[in-house]
Amino acid sequence: MHLSESTWPEVRELETSLAVLPVGSTEQHGPHAPLGTDMLTAEAVAAAGVDAYHDETGVDIPVAPTIPVAVAEEHRAFDGTLWVSPDTFRAYVRETVASLAHHGFDRIVIVNGHGGNVGALGELSGTISRHDDAYAVAFTWFEGVDSDVPMGHGGPRETAVLRHIRPDLVREDHVDTASEAASDHWGEWVAGVNLAHDSAEFTDNGVVGDPAEGIAALGAQLVDNAADGLCELLEAVGTRDRS
Amino acid sequence: MHLSESTWPEVRELETSLAVLPVGSTEQHGPHAPLGTDMLTAEAVAAAGVDAYHDETGVDIPVAPTIPVAVAEEHRAFDGTLWVSPDTFRAYVRETVASLAHHGFDRIVIVNGHGGNVGALGELSGTISRHDDAYAVAFTWFEGVDSDVPMGHGGPRETAVLRHIRPDLVREDHVDTASEAASDHWGEWVAGVNLAHDSAEFTDNGVVGDPAEGIAALGAQLVDNAADGLCELLEAVGTRDRS
Amino acid sequence: MHLSESTWPEVRELETSLAVLPVGSTEQHGPHAPLGTDMLTAEAVAAAGVDAYHDETGVDIPVAPTIPVAVAEEHRAFDGTLWVSPDTFRAYVRETVASLAHHGFDRIVIVNGHGGNVGALGELSGTISRHDDAYAVAFTWFEGVDSDVPMGHGGPRETAVLRHIRPDLVREDHVDTASEAASDHWGEWVAGVNLAHDSAEFTDNGVVGDPAEGIAALGAQLVDNAADGLCELLEAVGTRDRS
Amino acid sequence: MHLSESTWPEVRELETSLAVLPVGSTEQHGPHAPLGTDMLTAEAVAAAGVDAYHDETGVDIPVAPTIPVAVAEEHRAFDGTLWVSPDTFRAYVRETVASLAHHGFDRIVIVNGHGGNVGALGELSGTISRHDDAYAVAFTWFEGVDSDVPMGHGGPRETAVLRHIRPDLVREDHVDTASEAASDHWGEWVAGVNLAHDSAEFTDNGVVGDPAEGIAALGAQLVDNAADGLCELLEAVGTRDRS
Amino acid sequence: MHLSESTWPEVRELETSLAVLPVGSTEQHGPHAPLGTDMLTAEAVAAAGVDAYHDETGVDIPVAPTIPVAVAEEHRAFDGTLWVSPDTFRAYVRETVASLAHHGFDRIVIVNGHGGNVGALGELSGTISRHDDAYAVAFTWFEGVDSDVPMGHGGPRETAVLRHIRPDLVREDHVDTASEAASDHWGEWVAGVNLAHDSAEFTDNGVVGDPAEGIAALGAQLVDNAADGLCELLEAVGTRDRS
Amino acid sequence: MHLSESTWPEVRELETSLAVLPVGSTEQHGPHAPLGTDMLTAEAVAAAGVDAYHDETGVDIPVAPTIPVAVAEEHRAFDGTLWVSPDTFRAYVRETVASLAHHGFDRIVIVNGHGGNVGALGELSGTISRHDDAYAVAFTWFEGVDSDVPMGHGGPRETAVLRHIRPDLVREDHVDTASEAASDHWGEWVAGVNLAHDSAEFTDNGVVGDPAEGIAALGAQLVDNAADGLCELLEAVGTRDRS
Repeated sequence: MHLSESTWPEVRELETSLAVLPVGSTEQHGPHAPLGTDMLTAEAVAAAGVDAYHDETGVDIPVAPTIPVAVAEEHRAFDGTLWVSPDTFRAYVRETVASLAHHGFDRIVIVNGHGGNVGALGELSGTISRHDDAYAVAFTWFEGVDSDVPMGHGGPRETAVLRHIRPDLVREDHVDTASEAASDHWGEWVAGVNLAHDSAEFTDNGVVGDPAEGIAALGAQLVDNAADGLCELLEAVGTRDRS
Repeated sequence: MHLSESTWPEVRELETSLAVLPVGSTEQHGPHAPLGTDMLTAEAVAAAGVDAYHDETGVDIPVAPTIPVAVAEEHRAFDGTLWVSPDTFRAYVRETVASLAHHGFDRIVIVNGHGGNVGALGELSGTISRHDDAYAVAFTWFEGVDSDVPMGHGGPRETAVLRHIRPDLVREDHVDTASEAASDHWGEWVAGVNLAHDSAEFTDNGVVGDPAEGIAALGAQLVDNAADGLCELLEAVGTRDRS
Repeated sequence: MHLSESTWPEVRELETSLAVLPVGSTEQHGPHAPLGTDMLTAEAVAAAGVDAYHDETGVDIPVAPTIPVAVAEEHRAFDGTLWVSPDTFRAYVRETVASLAHHGFDRIVIVNGHGGNVGALGELSGTISRHDDAYAVAFTWFEGVDSDVPMGHGGPRETAVLRHIRPDLVREDHVDTASEAASDHWGEWVAGVNLAHDSAEFTDNGVVGDPAEGIAALGAQLVDNAADGLCELLEAVGTRDRS
Repeated sequence: MHLSESTWPEVRELETSLAVLPVGSTEQHGPHAPLGTDMLTAEAVAAAGVDAYHDETGVDIPVAPTIPVAVAEEHRAFDGTLWVSPDTFRAYVRETVASLAHHGFDRIVIVNGHGGNVGALGELSGTISRHDDAYAVAFTWFEGVDSDVPMGHGGPRETAVLRHIRPDLVREDHVDTASEAASDHWGEWVAGVNLAHDSAEFTDNGVVGDPAEGIAALGAQLVDNAADGLCELLEAVGTRDRS
Repeated sequence: MHLSESTWPEVRELETSLAVLPVGSTEQHGPHAPLGTDMLTAEAVAAAGVDAYHDETGVDIPVAPTIPVAVAEEHRAFDGTLWVSPDTFRAYVRETVASLAHHGFDRIVIVNGHGGNVGALGELSGTISRHDDAYAVAFTWFEGVDSDVPMGHGGPRETAVLRHIRPDLVREDHVDTASEAASDHWGEWVAGVNLAHDSAEFTDNGVVGDPAEGIAALGAQLVDNAADGLCELLEAVGTRDRS
Repeated sequence: MHLSESTWPEVRELETSLAVLPVGSTEQHGPHAPLGTDMLTAEAVAAAGVDAYHDETGVDIPVAPTIPVAVAEEHRAFDGTLWVSPDTFRAYVRETVASLAHHGFDRIVIVNGHGGNVGALGELSGTISRHDDAYAVAFTWFEGVDSDVPMGHGGPRETAVLRHIRPDLVREDHVDTASEAASDHWGEWVAGVNLAHDSAEFTDNGVVGDPAEGIAALGAQLVDNAADGLCELLEAVGTRDRS
């Protein structure tokens, strides 16, 4: 159930302590994919995951609106990329989670669509679970799927999911040039350390990996796979002993 | 142009220093209107306003994704209402605006759909304009329209706009009971001071004003009216001397 | 009872949970009125209000010393104007209120003399009442009076009150030039939005409205009127159900 | 020149980069002396000091309004004592100083009347001078006088100054009992460390030292002495090389 | 060169913009290894790395004193574990780095000995490099070595290094029981997400991995290996284009 | 017992609520003494103090690792001096103390080796004792000894202690020049106020006082004396009524 499309008496009827909070980012995804890619993919996985959970248990879980701006300063060289500091991002998500918990939804799965948020959300989940009246974990969908296709950035996985859920937003006429100019690796590594703090240091067009490989069928499979993982996680979170 | 649906090279092509940032809220709007009302109305007005501006000038203005969670703790008694503290809200919006300015969009109109944000956004606009590398003002759509219909909360204006833009989300079968149980005033006033810090102190179902009065035709008129106001404002902001 | 002129055993004898905290500002009020205008008026109204309350109930209410520096950066172009950020102002007032509440004065009316503080104090009152061990509201005296005379800035109302309470501080020989160069409106408005973040953008001498109109008799009437409002408010706050 | 009693054009006429900011406290001073003692003494010394400077140099220095609430939680056991955290106090004073500096008064002497502020003001003066566009030092008046009479708290020095400047506020009929029940030392000391964080741990009525000894003639002498010190300090600060 | 053992004129003689800042943690490492393990290992690797760099280039690099308390709340169930919040940790390290940069050492390699710090240091390195007058990266020694031996916690790698550098601190008589009761995995994983925020949820004695395997010869090899990596990293950081 | 050299089961065996937290600084101590002087002296006194306490009571007290970077910006002109802001320093120490208290060590003596920390630690001790679940006091060793030898900076006392505990770190060949160029006073005083915010304003080589006078025998005596004071303080803190 999407919170933003529901009324408060409908929310009051829910019989669960679980909630899902999708978190995206507004950031460059190359010349072929929209800046909102990470919101769209997080939303799609969140929706599919709670549907799967509903199919299995008959229970409806509220899905909060997607957080649109997150930790993405590393892409600042590319126009239209938006970001807030990690501190502000954590405060914003933490307090949003607290307001969910205020209504009794105090087992929260944050569904994340952006690699740059992983560190901040991991830290935040611990903070919330130890110090607030809620338990939280972060599920980054592309870490929860079982696939040989590399992640990259605006690469095969994300392009595949977009072609599956919002094909109208993929600039197909730019995919080839996106592929050609793409970087084949994330970062500049020496002794296990990435020296590049910004993505523009290692990719000219913002793409890492080959988007052409990301066909729609793969996208469908990735979303299914992620939804299954999310459903499994919701079951574990819903029954976890919090004493 | 919606940033989240655009690619970074498309954003780079834009020839304007203007940007629009819609800000909503996820909060109760009575038993007949969705929690996302303030996001939907802010988005609709923002889109119509930049369209009007484009019609008049031929110039495309980027519209950032809508901020979904804002200053709404006053509605905490009603399930599903989400909120962050005013401090966190200001930080989140301020840094988002700064990232727009980083790309040259340093004349920003925040299009606001929620009365509870007015104070925070007014303060923030001053702070940004005085201390950051940007100029910002906040346009709260229902303050920018010329109409005799009272605002209320989940009342005639908001219901009218929803019936115009998203009639599928209005629970028509609850409008009558919403009207009957609605409060006819916001707050509890003594000597010009509102003693009630929470809306539940003066409204039982969260509604203020009569939603039944809010017909779709009025909604169309309100959106047009607000879009004209926003267009006029964009022209003024775009040409304002910042020296 | 003025806290700063009382001893602690005298304060211990008080039999009330009410307290009054005057809040002013140190900021330009034109060439005829002193920078301390908002402190002086807030103090005068606070004193008259607790006197009225004492007359009616026989109960003494403590009046804290006046907060002298507040949210006034908008007047920074005029020499001698002092200010702190809204965040610091809120922290300072919030903690002062908490120390009053520590002694059992946990129903606090903030008596405000400056329009620029209204937003910050409204937000703060909600925060205190929801999250701290106290209930607070803010009474801005010129919003609590019933008068046809416009407020302005350094205009008829403030000049009138000054002529009543501290005529020695009004530079009568500058009132005429103050009137002549005064602006007749606050702000620069487009579509319901004020584009001017600083007062110097719309007033050359810092004055809005005609100070000459502000005769002492009007000042006496305004203070009486505000004191009555404050007294009524204190009664309501003192008996309000906080459960 | 008292800022709060001056107009902005008068402030603009000043020809100095010096300013004085008095800082007091609202806190218990025993059964015989008012809670506002530290404000009153700081104000008196500030006024006398700038007068002395004017006599010597012909130059007028602006005196800001007195900060009324400061670092006094140690006296929380005694009714009516107000306080803010040291962090908030520093922020409030720092930003007030910055607004003075905005108008060109960037050599600031903070005139302090409260021992509990000494640490915070010392730290703050360094921070301002190193990182802001101003130079600041803190002058605690009773550290700047040459006298054999001990300081105490509500003791001989403060009582003497009050009897000189505001005899109406000294409860003479309580001075004897104040003396009798007074503590003769501040703190509980072991190995050079004070174990008592609150004054109530070592004084029953809030007094340290014998107030009876504090005659008005001594008060006059102390104020003169402090004013001379302040005048000398203003000369040094005004001519100090800041390159 | 260890900063804490050097004098300021000696530091002034250095001819490098590089500096090394070791960061440890004070936290449980099982019944056989000391709470200071992560400090000791970070220090050993830092020292060996700058020695290697000196051997190769003839240039001395200053090594700051080791930060002793870090992000370790996850081990709070085990006595003696110390921690600060990630926010405070980042502020402390960031400002320490800024003071190094003040003296011209503005290319900083943070040598980290604790897995729990990795996220905070990664975020911080980006913040420093983008916004402060310094470039920083974090080298977590066990991520920079090439070894098949698993990391664990108080496991083979750390025990090995301790046996090499401080064998006196390994409680050899507790290694067997440490091994027997150790967990063989870090965390409780569902769908790629670790549900356990505290280590006590998956290890009874605080150990993960078999410490018995960690012989001193392996420790020597690991330190050498890490020192080589650090040396290589220092060369890369020292010559990296920062324009 | 040094926490960093102990294991968690050993800490669990302790039977005390006392703990000692040494706090140093990394800052210039002239051309003859190392930057780590304040860490070394604080550690030496802490160790000797808990030994004395053990001798007397048979009880072991945990000694946390020494905080290495503190409030020392005043020495920024001298190379290698490290510092953090007082706010960050207080946060770091406060949270470290809270983690000690988490394990039951909630009576904490901070053993301080640096004069620049005194104000911050005094403030912090009050804050912790009033608001956290712990009682804390700060013992600055050179304030707790009974000696006619002046303190200075890098002067006789510190040099004496270094010659006693770490003679290898005193550059004996620079002591004479250190003495010759030393300042004989700390600060530039007018009317009881120090006008100099940085030490370089009154000492060319960073030294105040004559280091040559600081012979090792004096150092031994100072450490003994301080250890006795600390022992006495620990006894007082351990038995102090906290109700």
